[in-house]
This record gives sequence, structure tokens and C-alpha cells, in this order.
Amino acid sequence: MSTVNKQILLVSRPTGDAVASNFKLVEAPLPELNDGQVLVRHHYLSLDPYMRWRMNDAKSYAAPQPLNQVMIGGTVGEVIESRHPKFKVGDMVAGMGGWQQYARVDAQVPGALRKVDASRVPLSAYLGSLGMPGVTAWYGLMKICAPKPGDTVVVSAASGAVGSVVGQLAKAHGCRAVGFAGGAEKCAYVVNELGFDACIDYKAHATPASLLAALEAQTPKGVDACFENVGGAVFDATLLRMNDFGRIALCGMIAGYDGVPTPMSRPDLILQSRLRVEGFIVSEHMQFWPEALAELGGLMAAGRLKFRESIAPRIEDAPEAFLGLLKGRNFGKQLVKLI
Amino acid sequence: MSTVNKQILLVSRPTGDAVASNFKLVEAPLPELNDGQVLVRHHYLSLDPYMRWRMNDAKSYAAPQPLNQVMIGGTVGEVIESRHPKFKVGDMVAGMGGWQQYARVDAQVPGALRKVDASRVPLSAYLGSLGMPGVTAWYGLMKICAPKPGDTVVVSAASGAVGSVVGQLAKAHGCRAVGFAGGAEKCAYVVNELGFDACIDYKAHATPASLLAALEAQTPKGVDACFENVGGAVFDATLLRMNDFGRIALCGMIAGYDGVPTPMSRPDLILQSRLRVEGFIVSEHMQFWPEALAELGGLMAAGRLKFRESIAPRIEDAPEAFLGLLKGRNFGKQLVKLI
Repeated sequence: MSTVNKQILLVSRPTGDAVASNFKLVEAPLPELNDGQVLVRHHYLSLDPYMRWRMNDAKSYAAPQPLNQVMIGGTVGEVIESRHPKFKVGDMVAGMGGWQQYARVDAQVPGALRKVDASRVPLSAYLGSLGMPGVTAWYGLMKICAPKPGDTVVVSAASGAVGSVVGQLAKAHGCRAVGFAGGAEKCAYVVNELGFDACIDYKAHATPASLLAALEAQTPKGVDACFENVGGAVFDATLLRMNDFGRIALCGMIAGYDGVPTPMSRPDLILQSRLRVEGFIVSEHMQFWPEALAELGGLMAAGRLKFRESIAPRIEDAPEAFLGLLKGRNFGKQLVKLI
Repeated sequence: MSTVNKQILLVSRPTGDAVASNFKLVEAPLPELNDGQVLVRHHYLSLDPYMRWRMNDAKSYAAPQPLNQVMIGGTVGEVIESRHPKFKVGDMVAGMGGWQQYARVDAQVPGALRKVDASRVPLSAYLGSLGMPGVTAWYGLMKICAPKPGDTVVVSAASGAVGSVVGQLAKAHGCRAVGFAGGAEKCAYVVNELGFDACIDYKAHATPASLLAALEAQTPKGVDACFENVGGAVFDATLLRMNDFGRIALCGMIAGYDGVPTPMSRPDLILQSRLRVEGFIVSEHMQFWPEALAELGGLMAAGRLKFRESIAPRIEDAPEAFLGLLKGRNFGKQLVKLI
């Protein structure tokens, strides 16, 4: 075991696109424990679009990431030292350990650390389909989109950590699932592996009219529910296809995270089609986690919840992997291997 | 009594702004009645922004107004001939008689005609605060905005038929009511006569920053609920002031009715502030009319629901009055006197 803890700090805020020099790798000594604390050696770090928001110093649902501190992030790993009675060395745990190899965690804080069972599913799944992205998909689909059998559900970033769960869950509930993804390879995966009914390669459509025509072809009965991860042109097209009384779960606006926010072209459609649009943050709905994880775990055990990961091999690679995620260069859940 | 029925037809669809030549005045003979029908002599015609939408031949919540037929519109009047047992000559009634002096109504159609009591409130109130605009205000505020005492409620077009009810109802429920209106005279009326806490003259603010600063000054605790009648710059400013978990009832987008739809600049705020935005059409919520009219009637009887009317004197004036309404030249509920 090393005696140093490699960490990545946010050292400057982006103006426009985030860049690698916003981050800095440092080495810190392994922390000492106080009573009630445990030391976790991280196996995987999760990289997620919400982190881009935290890099800004702006009004948001959460405080900005402080400068010169370890970047926030979800992690899974192994307890290697414990001064808390409920955790013992060797326990596998999920938490918010941040962009670093080791984390000292106040285990008595509710929700700070949860034990996970890595004997039947890969440990990394607890950062994806059985973690925050999976519950995000479950909450937005089941509680906001509220799909009925036969409904058409559209989800953007369909090959990603959240979108892939949305579509598979929609299929499990008897819906037609149509995705948007960037590139033919991702679209083939979404249809052939994940079992969506269709997936539209938004990069293959240079104009709004072309994108809309492609969506029309795949949604002959219109769209009843939209799970939006991206915003911008894809969201504009979906709005034009919404049926009366459609529901839109607004989960991400990654199209606008870098630089200038992307407008919504036709907000009047919310009125014309009497839509309900609701933004949400899964961490504010913790009471649904057990219900969500029970359903998702059951689907995964039955082989009906597949996932794919992009794994960067070292902590040093985290900034580039994160910048790639913002550009859609990942394929599936973006992780960093830390062990 | 005349033997001709002056009518105004829609004879062409606007390209961009609606113009007077889209309409044509004609004279028709008074209609003969069949069994179950009544003949109503109209006293007032209601002019409303939704009519502009109907003039387009586009996807909407309702079928377009057919060309060369009498323009749709709400009316109040007096039964002057009846072949329906429930209506007798002299009854005062409200209905959808259209832009004409007389209407033959199939009185057995549910909702086609309702008797009103003009002995205690002016007949015209049934086209305003005790009619469709009033129930629109009630439904959007009570069922979508769901304000709690102490909440700050913002409403655009605050001196208009709907907005004036929204603010007075919000005050009755213990909220801070802040309006937007066009011009100092309307704003003074909204505060001094209607009892809003504040009203912002959007015409006095040439830039988004100036408009936002004015709204900030009047909403020191942010905005909990927005009743949106206008869209565009005023809506953009309100979105920037919304508190977490705010509710937005989308009732009108009059800013975009003529010509190009107005975009929403910052849809990402729906996510950041976890807002719920819901479009609605009051005619789809008929089950709430009795409850709404009971509360509104009580407030009016108590002198706590004031209203103002702009009355065009003759049917010939209806097109110009309607075009003026779309430009905000009316002051209060826009009516046409037909008798």
C-alpha cells in the first residue's frame, strides 16, 4: 500500500469550455483517522456531467466546488482501516470520496457511506446502473414521466449511464423507447444491446428539420414522455413531437454546461400541448432509493439491465476523461480506475 | 329588433401580425329555430388573446378557426326566442356565440349555454372575472401555482382580465403579489385599485438587466410561483428570480402569437431550480368551474375582486379592438358592446 494519496484539485474556474489546466494533480499524505471514521481505498471514481456545473461560481442547486480542494465525485472502494463499529476492513463501500485514491470518511454521517455487495455484480455497477445514475433514471422516468404501457418515451444521451437505464426501464414497463445518441456505433449499441426500439444519431443531422424528420419517422404516434439529459437541438426536436399532456423530466442540460446556456426555441409548445416540465436532482429524493434499487437490481439479475463502461486507467487520466465526457467521447458510464 | 344579424368572419390567415383585412363584416338573416334551440341576442362579445392562435392553420390544442365562418368568441346576452324547455324569453345567458349580434344555440348540448344572474353583478362580469378569464386565473393559481401564505407570486399582463384576478386571488390567500404591466397608468391601477404589492412597467426597461433589477427590487425573497400570460423578456426575467421548487403556470404566450415564437433564454434554470412548468387550457378542467366561481363570486360580493373593462361600442369595431388587445392597447377586460 502506498503512503501517498494522489488527488486532483480544481485550481481555476473555466471561462467557456472546461480545460485540463483547471485541474491539478497533487500528492498528500494518507490521512489519520479519528473515532467514527474509516479509511477507504478507492477502486473506481465516477465522472458525471453535473461536475461541470459545480466548476462554475454561479447560482445552482449546490454550492460551487471550492477552489484548491479535491474535486467532488462518487467512488466505490474497500475499507482498509476503520474506527467505526459498523464498518470493518474489507467491506466494500460506495460514497462520495472525490477525485483521489483514498478518502477518510465520517461514517456516522447519514448517507456518507453505504455497504455494497460486489459478489454478484461488478463493484463499478454501484457507480452506474445500481448507483446515482440508475436511481436518477428511475426517479425521472417513474415519478415524473410516469409512462403507461404503449407510451412512447424519448431519452437523449441514450448510451450513457442514465439514458441507458431510462430506455431499458421504459421497455420493461411496456413502452416504445427511442433514444438519441452521437454516432452510428453508439446507436447500434443502444438498439442491439440495450434493446431500444430505435436510436437516432443526432450527429448525422445537420439541420433542425432533418433531426425532426428522423424523430418523426421513429415516433409515429408522437412522444408521450421525454427524459432530457442534453437540451439544445435534440430537446427542441422532441418538444415538437410531444403529444398533449406529455411529461418531460429535465435531468440534464449538458449542451449548455460549457459557456452560453442553450435556449429553448419553442416554449409555447408547453402551453399548446399542455405539457408538464419538471427539473429534478435525484439527491433530493433519497426516500425512493430503496424502491428504485430493488427494481433495478431485479432487472440486472434477470439480465434485462445491461450497461457499458468507459474506464480511464489511472487517476492522472481523470481530467482528460472528464473533458471527453462533456464532448460525448465516452461510450457508456465513464469511470476512472484507481487501483 | 333588427331582422339582420351582423357578423364578422375570418376571411384570411395572418402572415406575421394579424391585420384588419383578415376579417370581414357581413349581414345574414336572423336564423330560424329548430326544436331544442334558442335565439340569443348578444349584449357583449369577449375578445381574448387565444383567438389569435385560432387564426393560424397550425397544430394547436384546438382546431383552427375555419375561414369564411363567424369568428369564435364568448358572449353574454338575452334569450329572445326559445324552443327549449329550460330556457325562456328574457333569460340572461353566457355562451360561445361568436362575433355576431345574434346566435342560434343548440341548448341541449352540455355547456353550450349557462344561465347567469345579472341582478347583482354586471352582465359583462360573466365574460371576465366570473367567466372564462376568472376561472383560468383560479385554476392556474390554485391548482398549478398552489401558493402558500407568504409566497411571492408574479403575474404578467397584470391589469388584464386574467392577470387582475390572479393577483387579487393571491392576495386573498396571503401571498405577495407582483405584477408586470405596460405603462405607468396600468401599473398604478394594479397597485392602487387591485391591491397588488407592486407592479413593474416592462415598457420602462429597455434591457433584460434593467427588467431583472426591477423585479429583484420587488421580490426580495425571490419568486415562488409565476402565472405566465406573456412569455418573452418578462418570462425570462421571472425565471431568473424563481426559488427552488417554484411552480409556473403557463397560461399564455402572447409575446409570440404574432409571427415568430419567442424562445426561452434559460431553460437550464428549470433544472437548476427544480421548477415545475405546466401548460394548461381552462376548458379542459370544467369540473373545477363550480368551485372556482364560488370563490370568485364570494370575493366579488365582498368587494375584493375588482375589474376594469375596455368596451368597443359596436360590432364593426371588433377587429380593431382585437388587434389593439394583441398590442396591449386595451386596459382591463376587452369587450365589444353589441346592443
